[in-house]
Amino acid sequence: MSLLAELERVAAAVERRLDRLLAEPGERPEDKRLGEAMRYAALSGGKRLRPLLLVESARLFGVKEEEALPAATALECIHCYSLAHDDLPAMDDDAVRRGRPALHIAFDEATAILAGDALLTLAFEILSDEGTHPDPAIRAELVLLLARAAGWRGMAQGQALDLSPERQSFTPAEIAAMQELKTGALFRFACEAGAALGRAGLTERAALIAYASSFGQAFQLADDLLDAEGDAAALGKAVAKDASRGKATLIARLGPDMARQRLDELVVEAEEALAPFGDRAITLVETVRFAVDRKR
Amino acid sequence: MSLLAELERVAAAVERRLDRLLAEPGERPEDKRLGEAMRYAALSGGKRLRPLLLVESARLFGVKEEEALPAATALECIHCYSLAHDDLPAMDDDAVRRGRPALHIAFDEATAILAGDALLTLAFEILSDEGTHPDPAIRAELVLLLARAAGWRGMAQGQALDLSPERQSFTPAEIAAMQELKTGALFRFACEAGAALGRAGLTERAALIAYASSFGQAFQLADDLLDAEGDAAALGKAVAKDASRGKATLIARLGPDMARQRLDELVVEAEEALAPFGDRAITLVETVRFAVDRKR
Repeated sequence: MSLLAELERVAAAVERRLDRLLAEPGERPEDKRLGEAMRYAALSGGKRLRPLLLVESARLFGVKEEEALPAATALECIHCYSLAHDDLPAMDDDAVRRGRPALHIAFDEATAILAGDALLTLAFEILSDEGTHPDPAIRAELVLLLARAAGWRGMAQGQALDLSPERQSFTPAEIAAMQELKTGALFRFACEAGAALGRAGLTERAALIAYASSFGQAFQLADDLLDAEGDAAALGKAVAKDASRGKATLIARLGPDMARQRLDELVVEAEEALAPFGDRAITLVETVRFAVDRKR
Repeated sequence: MSLLAELERVAAAVERRLDRLLAEPGERPEDKRLGEAMRYAALSGGKRLRPLLLVESARLFGVKEEEALPAATALECIHCYSLAHDDLPAMDDDAVRRGRPALHIAFDEATAILAGDALLTLAFEILSDEGTHPDPAIRAELVLLLARAAGWRGMAQGQALDLSPERQSFTPAEIAAMQELKTGALFRFACEAGAALGRAGLTERAALIAYASSFGQAFQLADDLLDAEGDAAALGKAVAKDASRGKATLIARLGPDMARQRLDELVVEAEEALAPFGDRAITLVETVRFAVDRKR
């Protein structure tokens, strides 16, 4: 099966789960509003790249796709909450997301804040549910890993740094560290959760973490290149936002040629990290290439 | 020991834990900002009533205070996150909280949103940590209970309803249902978590849930009475906000005399729910009286 077909299949499966989880939000219009906002934020079509990473990481250890999908759905809830909050006027102030009005435009700011909060909370409800894994030790570990990845020493801190006035004078190393938190932490969770579901040994887990780190950096660099040079219509959101806001990106520091060279290195590093898995990791190898290529 | 002394002891213990958890936020000013905002939101005094309920519910089943404090600290993180987000300009737009500038005034809106997100996430990091309970099945259950209490069918939905334009025409029963979600859900978690930590049977758990429900309603009614009639200086926040915003409260529907009568009934109901525990529940009985009396 081609990577694209698999990506679509996993995306569809995650969306079916989200659709079921967020069904029947209530009878009165006021009961429905929050649930509808959550649906809008969670069912707006993303590529579902993080769920694919989780499913494929788990597959390395013989975990069936069906058994990895609940954790993958929880991860996507966190990703969607972070987009909803990042788009808020007080944060990145983005009016468009995935070619549609951002959540706070389609609804209102208060509802966007609450829907983000509720999606964040839902992720932990999913992970702690028996349906996610029969062994409560695995469920508790998944909760701990996701809370650390998303929290004040992970994604939330990355976003805080990205919004800080000091970011304009960040060195390339500081920018990379910020992006490791803001974007990298969830990629790392995707791979580590797959390893946890598969009860992987420390060596295999470390290999997946190394892959996730290179993947995350490559993904962010490709995203920044696209923002610097891309086409707003193809992207479904505004471009050149980073430069116009004086945001710290590696492109601004390295220049586009150096950035492209670094991107190629990162793809190689990601592939090399997967060497211990041999041919079993072919889909993960293809995924990093796909994630980078679709952006350039 | 008097209830006040115990409340202070539990509050101090929860604060020590929060202080430790949020220590060393980083070296650079930009690394520290998020952690400092979380500290501001979480270490600003509060009575820590919810932690006390959790500790006392667990004590009914022989759980030592020390063993209940981690879950109590997680619960307080959720409470503090909800206050930080509720105070935001897009939500209740409150500039003062506990006699100090609200979080978004003391820092900024983006930091207040992120600090709330991070406190919400930290609650689940605490609950899933081995230090909270040696049995992962208990940890996973606590995560599930808290996620349900705080999420889109719990507290977040209560806040969404409280902000909805339809709230001005809510019936008394609809207001009570809204408050059961917005305020009651966390009180219920406090008591249910205590029962979970103590591996309580279904009957005892149901008794505590009934207590929490009456407690939550009484607490909210007393709070509304205080808002309608209280003294801003004594309260440390603005009063008569609800009326000036046309917010749905039971006071506006029932009138203050009926509301006081209902309050007395709820206190009796809360006490009666504790009957199965006999004298062991004396502190929980005192707590509902205290929570109501300090407000009138």
